[in-house]
Amino acid sequence: MHKFGFIGLGIMGSAMAKNLLKAGCQVTVWNRSPEKTEDLVALGATRAETPAAVAASCPITFAMLADPAAAEEVCFGRHGILEGIGDGRGYVDMSTVDPATSQKIGFAVVAKGGRFLEAPVSGSKKPAEDGTLIILAAGDRTLYDEALPGLEAMGKKILHLGDVGKGAEMKIVVNMVMGGMMAAFCEGLALGGKAGLATADILDVIAAGAIASPMFALKGGLIAQGIFTPAFPLKHMQKDLRLAIGLGDRLGQPLAAAAATNELFKGGRAAGYGDEDFSALYKLID
Amino acid sequence: MHKFGFIGLGIMGSAMAKNLLKAGCQVTVWNRSPEKTEDLVALGATRAETPAAVAASCPITFAMLADPAAAEEVCFGRHGILEGIGDGRGYVDMSTVDPATSQKIGFAVVAKGGRFLEAPVSGSKKPAEDGTLIILAAGDRTLYDEALPGLEAMGKKILHLGDVGKGAEMKIVVNMVMGGMMAAFCEGLALGGKAGLATADILDVIAAGAIASPMFALKGGLIAQGIFTPAFPLKHMQKDLRLAIGLGDRLGQPLAAAAATNELFKGGRAAGYGDEDFSALYKLID
Amino acid sequence: MHKFGFIGLGIMGSAMAKNLLKAGCQVTVWNRSPEKTEDLVALGATRAETPAAVAASCPITFAMLADPAAAEEVCFGRHGILEGIGDGRGYVDMSTVDPATSQKIGFAVVAKGGRFLEAPVSGSKKPAEDGTLIILAAGDRTLYDEALPGLEAMGKKILHLGDVGKGAEMKIVVNMVMGGMMAAFCEGLALGGKAGLATADILDVIAAGAIASPMFALKGGLIAQGIFTPAFPLKHMQKDLRLAIGLGDRLGQPLAAAAATNELFKGGRAAGYGDEDFSALYKLID
Amino acid sequence: MHKFGFIGLGIMGSAMAKNLLKAGCQVTVWNRSPEKTEDLVALGATRAETPAAVAASCPITFAMLADPAAAEEVCFGRHGILEGIGDGRGYVDMSTVDPATSQKIGFAVVAKGGRFLEAPVSGSKKPAEDGTLIILAAGDRTLYDEALPGLEAMGKKILHLGDVGKGAEMKIVVNMVMGGMMAAFCEGLALGGKAGLATADILDVIAAGAIASPMFALKGGLIAQGIFTPAFPLKHMQKDLRLAIGLGDRLGQPLAAAAATNELFKGGRAAGYGDEDFSALYKLID
Repeated sequence: MHKFGFIGLGIMGSAMAKNLLKAGCQVTVWNRSPEKTEDLVALGATRAETPAAVAASCPITFAMLADPAAAEEVCFGRHGILEGIGDGRGYVDMSTVDPATSQKIGFAVVAKGGRFLEAPVSGSKKPAEDGTLIILAAGDRTLYDEALPGLEAMGKKILHLGDVGKGAEMKIVVNMVMGGMMAAFCEGLALGGKAGLATADILDVIAAGAIASPMFALKGGLIAQGIFTPAFPLKHMQKDLRLAIGLGDRLGQPLAAAAATNELFKGGRAAGYGDEDFSALYKLID
Repeated sequence: MHKFGFIGLGIMGSAMAKNLLKAGCQVTVWNRSPEKTEDLVALGATRAETPAAVAASCPITFAMLADPAAAEEVCFGRHGILEGIGDGRGYVDMSTVDPATSQKIGFAVVAKGGRFLEAPVSGSKKPAEDGTLIILAAGDRTLYDEALPGLEAMGKKILHLGDVGKGAEMKIVVNMVMGGMMAAFCEGLALGGKAGLATADILDVIAAGAIASPMFALKGGLIAQGIFTPAFPLKHMQKDLRLAIGLGDRLGQPLAAAAATNELFKGGRAAGYGDEDFSALYKLID
Repeated sequence: MHKFGFIGLGIMGSAMAKNLLKAGCQVTVWNRSPEKTEDLVALGATRAETPAAVAASCPITFAMLADPAAAEEVCFGRHGILEGIGDGRGYVDMSTVDPATSQKIGFAVVAKGGRFLEAPVSGSKKPAEDGTLIILAAGDRTLYDEALPGLEAMGKKILHLGDVGKGAEMKIVVNMVMGGMMAAFCEGLALGGKAGLATADILDVIAAGAIASPMFALKGGLIAQGIFTPAFPLKHMQKDLRLAIGLGDRLGQPLAAAAATNELFKGGRAAGYGDEDFSALYKLID
Repeated sequence: MHKFGFIGLGIMGSAMAKNLLKAGCQVTVWNRSPEKTEDLVALGATRAETPAAVAASCPITFAMLADPAAAEEVCFGRHGILEGIGDGRGYVDMSTVDPATSQKIGFAVVAKGGRFLEAPVSGSKKPAEDGTLIILAAGDRTLYDEALPGLEAMGKKILHLGDVGKGAEMKIVVNMVMGGMMAAFCEGLALGGKAGLATADILDVIAAGAIASPMFALKGGLIAQGIFTPAFPLKHMQKDLRLAIGLGDRLGQPLAAAAATNELFKGGRAAGYGDEDFSALYKLID
């Protein structure tokens, strides 16, 4: 029976930890607000008092935290991962953080005698629940192999992409493409609308052709209804575009279309749509 | 038994006319180079000597011509459509032309007592052969209803979008979205490549997520192999982007992302890739 | 004594015609609203009843009209230039029109036996009054030489740029540069303002360095005061940018920065600033 | 008699220190390569062995260093400024560094009991020699007042812009405007050239009108001759554009035109023009 730790039981994390339990794993959990552990405990999980206690008692600990600040706090803070890791035990950080933060955490874990894997995911609430996330792992290869049964309980597509940092970079690249698609989509809907074409017809034509995508199908209908409840907040998309532009700067890769897209999303943020779904860019453009 | 004329037997047109025959229709054909009619005649089509003869002998005549110049020549030229149309007979121009050309042809057909429908298609060789084109019809509604059995033999999705010009505008809008997607895709592949990510991994991640699309699946593999054989030439994409920007100008719709994309494709043309596939934009960006 | 006709006595034209009189020329004038001729007549000008009468009675006739429509009406309309021109007499159209309109007028004048020069100007009311316009002439070289004494009374810098159309193209190129400068300037003022820098300090630093320009000096002060009274309307700047992008399209010249600038000015038009000065772009950006 | 220290005797710094001597100041100098102090000593300067010795012996020490790394080394390194500063003595760093580096140095100087002023300059070799730099000071106001006699010997325009960081931000804002102007200028020259207009004519028209600027006058002639010897290297302009975009990101200011310009300059870097003058952007665009 596989034994894993799991830290961070937000919307994503609790769904992912449940999938570990469903797959028959033994799971030790910790969350900053302890009441969020109740559901998991009811399903058979063990509750630990600190991240350090999780890391000390499990061969491999997964984490899914809200942002780089939370990821750093859980690792470096009082009773954090660093105080429990060691003896080759593994830490798999699945939070979305920038490559620099990831490398900093990984370096510290290794310095303490642990092993480290970054494994940010692509996909939001529904795929987390369904165990169909895309997992972009990078770092220690032996840890990857040992963590695989757990990763496979949470995701449908798991890749090992190289050294720590490559998972974060893959996520940035793919989100940059997504941002560009959304900008093109919103401009198309706005232009078509002004030309007198019915939005439903435009969505129909797009859905029937080579550019059809699950994102257009889902977001198109919501945009048509004026629903912008955040699945992926606009400000996070803009942050990823900023990171992509910065990556291009370091690597000498001009990104004219992504730069124009980034400024559009910045305009969306300036217009007050930062906390709405990234498809709220439509409101800025139309 | 439905009886249709069909004018223009290039790669697209001959496949489409064959689908009319397969559906059991009686088809009269004409092509500027007469040898291209042979295949169709062998399959049961009748050959006419001029466009005028087709239009005069069939209740409804379809046309699929290479560009606006050819579309105008077939309509207004010697022994052209205008010399045969009349008495309520219908002309359905499926060529991709700008809205102005379409309106000019439609106006002339109606002035001669005919009925007119523009019906540009989305999809290239394969969907034309399979009868799975998307047909963007606009114009005379009664003609649309009568032509529907023929359109259904050629396409899987047929829409009536309003007055003449709306079909052309829909095509421009959708191709603008396609151009933006391609620019984002090429920039993503180039950036990921420079970051040391394997192209196959990037394509894998894209294919597994919400932004997956048939276009990325098809073109991604070809780009990875360096194959840019034209399915849709880069210069045609740039022309459609130019038309989209111009439409936005007339309608007061700013299109910052599409404008950046248009300049990228112009750069592709300037670099000599105009006659390659529009995915050859990758060569400019990488 | 030089004898010239002058057609079109708006703000620009009346100032220009006065400079011809001040230079000792004999001037015959016509204006659509006849009362605008009174000032000129009081200063010694002769009034004619139609454009045709001016063109028939003067060796060289200048025109300064509001837009391409007015320029076409004065040339092709009833009692227009074409009814009076001929026998090698010259027509110098100083209106700002697109190259195509200019070529159409020039072709018609030459077909009637006249000679033609386009001569759009750079500069607005003040330089028109001071006789310090920049005159971008193109077309018949002999007419240019003969018109020079008149042109020198109106401008401080007079160039002959080649065939008809080159004057209009030069104006488009220079206005494109001007539009790009204004966009950069407005973004700089907005960014600096958000960073807490005083606008007066930014203007001071710019004025003291290598990028100082009369435009920044004049417009900077007005922007700081929120004054956007049109000297050059925003919608005209956007039109020139559109023409520049179109020229780049025909000539295969990518223009990424100008395209971004064009979309910004389109945004200014969409926000309702089209009839204000083109520096009102600041209101969109800030 | 004013007494100043001066650290960093490169092209800029040696010219600036000479102007202090010419103005009758007593100057103590230090440079990493000691042979560069010889000229200054021959003109009356005193040579010190370390930055610490300069800072310990002069009421106010100026520094003009090549980049942030050099600025940090001189301040924090062995025998650096921090080992000599204190007792209210002043350190005026005139190097071009990002706001964060400037704040870090300023904070350390103050923590040691010194006073700090950042004072980056606008202008290159010639204005440094002529004492006509523009000096963008920010930080301790009393130090500014006391340093003013020295600053006035080096610059023609000296501003105090607020807290430490504002000088660096002003420089970024102004260089962003400069970059946008250069992009517009290069696109204009390239477009005009393709349209068959003579470069000399375009430069003439620009020089005669409202957009004339010393930069266009100087760079236009050099571009026409294909001379791109670096006065301000392209890679430095791109770095400043990156910083400006980043500043806009933090402050919520969309910068569509600057972002397009930044990607053009990145393209220039990718094409290998990074060490040439920033006007070498022309080679990328044309």
